[in-house]
Amino acid sequence: MNVNKHLEGSRKLVDGALGKYLSSKEKAYRTIYKAMRYSVLAGGKRIRPILVIESTKACGGSIKDAMPTACAVEMIHAYSLIHDDLPSMDNDDFRRGRPTCHKVFGEANAILAGDALIPLALNILSKEMAPKRAVAAIGELSDAIGTKGMVGGQVLDLEYKNKKKGLATLIFINRLKTSRLFEASAKLGAIAAGAGQKKIDAMGRFGLYFGTSYQIIDDILDKDDYAKAFGVEKARRDSEALMKKAINSLDIFGKNADTLREIAAYFLKRKS
Amino acid sequence: MNVNKHLEGSRKLVDGALGKYLSSKEKAYRTIYKAMRYSVLAGGKRIRPILVIESTKACGGSIKDAMPTACAVEMIHAYSLIHDDLPSMDNDDFRRGRPTCHKVFGEANAILAGDALIPLALNILSKEMAPKRAVAAIGELSDAIGTKGMVGGQVLDLEYKNKKKGLATLIFINRLKTSRLFEASAKLGAIAAGAGQKKIDAMGRFGLYFGTSYQIIDDILDKDDYAKAFGVEKARRDSEALMKKAINSLDIFGKNADTLREIAAYFLKRKS
Repeated sequence: MNVNKHLEGSRKLVDGALGKYLSSKEKAYRTIYKAMRYSVLAGGKRIRPILVIESTKACGGSIKDAMPTACAVEMIHAYSLIHDDLPSMDNDDFRRGRPTCHKVFGEANAILAGDALIPLALNILSKEMAPKRAVAAIGELSDAIGTKGMVGGQVLDLEYKNKKKGLATLIFINRLKTSRLFEASAKLGAIAAGAGQKKIDAMGRFGLYFGTSYQIIDDILDKDDYAKAFGVEKARRDSEALMKKAINSLDIFGKNADTLREIAAYFLKRKS
Repeated sequence: MNVNKHLEGSRKLVDGALGKYLSSKEKAYRTIYKAMRYSVLAGGKRIRPILVIESTKACGGSIKDAMPTACAVEMIHAYSLIHDDLPSMDNDDFRRGRPTCHKVFGEANAILAGDALIPLALNILSKEMAPKRAVAAIGELSDAIGTKGMVGGQVLDLEYKNKKKGLATLIFINRLKTSRLFEASAKLGAIAAGAGQKKIDAMGRFGLYFGTSYQIIDDILDKDDYAKAFGVEKARRDSEALMKKAINSLDIFGKNADTLREIAAYFLKRKS
């Protein structure tokens, strides 16, 4: 399989579906949709929705089963970037080579675009999945992005901004802020396919290890946190060990998870 | 019935339940829970959760059936106040006689406290209601607070901040920003009781009219928007006509909605 080409195909499908969810012809809602589209449709690797899709497929579901969930997790990711970039948070003027949402639409509209993406993501799950799967998916995703997940991680990240972080603290913050949403994405893919609890849990472990490895590689490429504190060599070693653990978590899926394994190997070697 | 005493009793139950949802003994999450508790447990009329409870009871359900939903809508209301008060929005330093969330915990933590309350509210619905009721409730609530509801209303409110609003615009903005959540609250109460669609819809109409009247009375008391633009007399007349429509929407519930009728009459006459 040409992984690069495969991912490119998935990205296009995800972008198409996202564009549909984020369109409104009503003039009254023009500003908020513009701000949301600006940030959600700004490109990016779409790694979380890709994990959803491949997890669904490994569990015997179709891309159609996966797509609402895939879009929901990407909307959540986009909201987190918009809010993280705000002046009172990381104060970033650029994201993916373009001015950040608050630079273009103002701080209030950027906050509100993020505020609207959270209920939209959960709304999609409530309306496009069967009730039992929907509540499982909503429960998992809302846990992953709350106080003991993404938001909690961002709070801690800001608290430790100018302090030295030990290894345990750094791992804990990354787990909450980043890996937890990867874990949820992989689990939601399994839930969307109607998989049993054992497979959902295995996918959760895969997502968690994958996300943790992914974040360390990010830090290596950006010369940031993990790599800065513990050196590129240890960071490289740890990211490899974690991705191996991720791949090992896929054993119960047999050949059905081959694509996920290839994607994991591909992201371990990425250079950007 | 002594309405005042009755409402006071409901408020205490709601506050107790909210306090339980917003507690965490883990040190890592101390800041975020502190910020959330500060804003959610700051008092207030608890009118939205009271609508949930009374709607559930009018549909034959119990307080126990209503309580998770009642807490969820109050969390959403609290999040909206935290974000509305931010410097980039209404820039308010005080709320209910106390410094606003961002004045005490900083802007980033205030944004994040709001960000955490949204998924927490929807998480509670996903876990404490039967699946079919949960997806109906989550679908309705997430619609009510999104682009074509609360967030959309706030975007428009900011756009029209220093512009003259015509009657139609003012009504449209208030509908999105305020009445829509009242509508959802009353509907969610019916959903929590397992009511059929006809009763859910009737409760929706009640909530929408009630909320619209409630907002106009707010404007009369605060000498704000509606009263300022169209005069206290018209505002008074319109709020009375709307509350009458709200009460008329309750016909199909017969005597079971007597408490709701009394509460509607009580809030029409409120002086604060």
